Amino acid sequence: MSQDSRASSKPLLDVLAGKRQPVPPIWMMRQAGRYLPEYRELRAKAGSFLDLCFTPDYAAEVTLQPIRRFNFDAAIIFSDILVIPYALGRSVRFEAGEGPRLDPLDTPEKVKTLAAHADFTKLEPVYEALRRVRRELDDRIALIGFCGAPWTVATYMVAGQGTPDQAPARMMAYRHPQAFAAIVDVLVENSIHYLVSQLKAGADCLQLFDTWAGVLPPREFERWSIEPARQIVEGVRKEMPDAKIIGFPRGAAGMLPAYVEATGVNAVSIDWTAEPAMIRERVQSRAAVQGNLDPLALIAGGDALDRAIDDVLANYGKGRLIFNLGHGIQPETPIAHVEQMVQRVRAFRG
Amino acid sequence: MSQDSRASSKPLLDVLAGKRQPVPPIWMMRQAGRYLPEYRELRAKAGSFLDLCFTPDYAAEVTLQPIRRFNFDAAIIFSDILVIPYALGRSVRFEAGEGPRLDPLDTPEKVKTLAAHADFTKLEPVYEALRRVRRELDDRIALIGFCGAPWTVATYMVAGQGTPDQAPARMMAYRHPQAFAAIVDVLVENSIHYLVSQLKAGADCLQLFDTWAGVLPPREFERWSIEPARQIVEGVRKEMPDAKIIGFPRGAAGMLPAYVEATGVNAVSIDWTAEPAMIRERVQSRAAVQGNLDPLALIAGGDALDRAIDDVLANYGKGRLIFNLGHGIQPETPIAHVEQMVQRVRAFRG
Repeated sequence: MSQDSRASSKPLLDVLAGKRQPVPPIWMMRQAGRYLPEYRELRAKAGSFLDLCFTPDYAAEVTLQPIRRFNFDAAIIFSDILVIPYALGRSVRFEAGEGPRLDPLDTPEKVKTLAAHADFTKLEPVYEALRRVRRELDDRIALIGFCGAPWTVATYMVAGQGTPDQAPARMMAYRHPQAFAAIVDVLVENSIHYLVSQLKAGADCLQLFDTWAGVLPPREFERWSIEPARQIVEGVRKEMPDAKIIGFPRGAAGMLPAYVEATGVNAVSIDWTAEPAMIRERVQSRAAVQGNLDPLALIAGGDALDRAIDDVLANYGKGRLIFNLGHGIQPETPIAHVEQMVQRVRAFRG
Repeated sequence: MSQDSRASSKPLLDVLAGKRQPVPPIWMMRQAGRYLPEYRELRAKAGSFLDLCFTPDYAAEVTLQPIRRFNFDAAIIFSDILVIPYALGRSVRFEAGEGPRLDPLDTPEKVKTLAAHADFTKLEPVYEALRRVRRELDDRIALIGFCGAPWTVATYMVAGQGTPDQAPARMMAYRHPQAFAAIVDVLVENSIHYLVSQLKAGADCLQLFDTWAGVLPPREFERWSIEPARQIVEGVRKEMPDAKIIGFPRGAAGMLPAYVEATGVNAVSIDWTAEPAMIRERVQSRAAVQGNLDPLALIAGGDALDRAIDDVLANYGKGRLIFNLGHGIQPETPIAHVEQMVQRVRAFRG
């Protein structure tokens, strides 16, 4: 089956290919996660968080859980943005309740020790999980592969952990731009290979998560968020010319038009603070928009949730829209509220 | 001396009044603070942080310290955005290294216990400090009074502390909009009185700090950031028609044009992630712009600092600009870097 004929039966791929859908396709960032009791049950059985990611049976099962419950229009492979540093031989640990821990790569001297090429055999379980999900997935549902964007992955590699505003990486980019560029270049090259491999293993499209893009001033945003994303899109399409890619430079706000134009992504995922008129005029005119319900409105439920859903549909439903949250779903979200959201979005006719 | 004749000798007030200056006036948010050894010395002598704010000798001295060192174009009275809840009888403590702690006002029942009117005698030391600073300040230097914007102050009152994204207040605004509005209304009324009193005590102009505006979706931003700011500007100008007010809805990004238009502020302070073309076209065309150096660039120093300063000047120096940081200066900032910044900005001719 050619990629084109596959695409024609999947609403999410149609939107990415330029065809607006009257009922916007819907999925949720972090839809396979702790708000689901079946996830928590399986998570308790797996060893570490990385064991969960790298055991194809587990990863495939977790990927499919939200599809069974909510019949979303897309499944996103269960994995983590730090698997690239892991495959590059960096120490990556996930400590319960604390987030990831890595050995900080915080001096130009340490950067010289960074391997140029990942050991991609370490990521073979991700490809195997993709193949398994692909086999079990309804034809109508798109399978999304992903990786972290170089800037965001580098912020964790430099600091060795998440921080409130990722100051250590921003500081290194100011003080040692060449050393920082060396990290980003390694991530660009290896991310291209990783993303192409995910497409070959059965992913229909890709998402690039630049969770920390929003802390950068314009000059730095162009250098560390836009330019690496542009290189990745170009590199992936060199091998897979029809590759569909969603960019998520979270918090990019006014820089989104420049991001879309320079990178050539098919869609951008936007957070809940975006200003609708600008997004419609300068972003949705060029690419599909994915988003952007406030995850807190989903926790709140009730009338506030209905109103927030209706705002997203009113703001973006007349153009190419993939309904999603503005960021990942939070663990305390009631499942009934997710059901309320899916029902309301599917009742919409734009 | 009339306010107009006073204004004519102060570059910062000239910019607020519509007259662009070839050398932009400069000051720094949190310029009286821990990066200064003379501040740390005086801080160690004072008892609690609130004792420092409420002892006119101390507050006046701390306000003047950065002026003596850097000859800035503005002094901002040393105080805190939580003095209004304090004057409303709420418990407000500052614990070392932990930020503020209040008794959470997190249910509609508790909101009913909130006093409608502050005991403004508690804020008399702030007015006294303003009078003392006024007497010692060079005629060329503007004295800025301030308060926290209702949304931001309410986020601390609801949560009882700062949180990574002020979720408790956002949740209350979703679930109990009327109770939340009651808090905001009380803050609006009392902030107007407090700001007018600061002008009467010698402040030349005012700044409204909405540090947490950037977490709100558009509808909530209009309701909880724009509308209270509009009411405050209107209320202050009812008593002081020429009052000059700077708004700082941090992280407002694409919502800034709507904020400026609806509130009628004379200037907006912008953070370092703002997109320059949009700000020039849709914000600086209507109001002065204040900002927006990345505080991390000021820590980094060297060429990175020069380039970041030049970006601010190139982006906004052709219009009405007050040079400032995009947020408060951080304690670890070297004093030599502040000197480098002042020198470079004062060498600019726009």
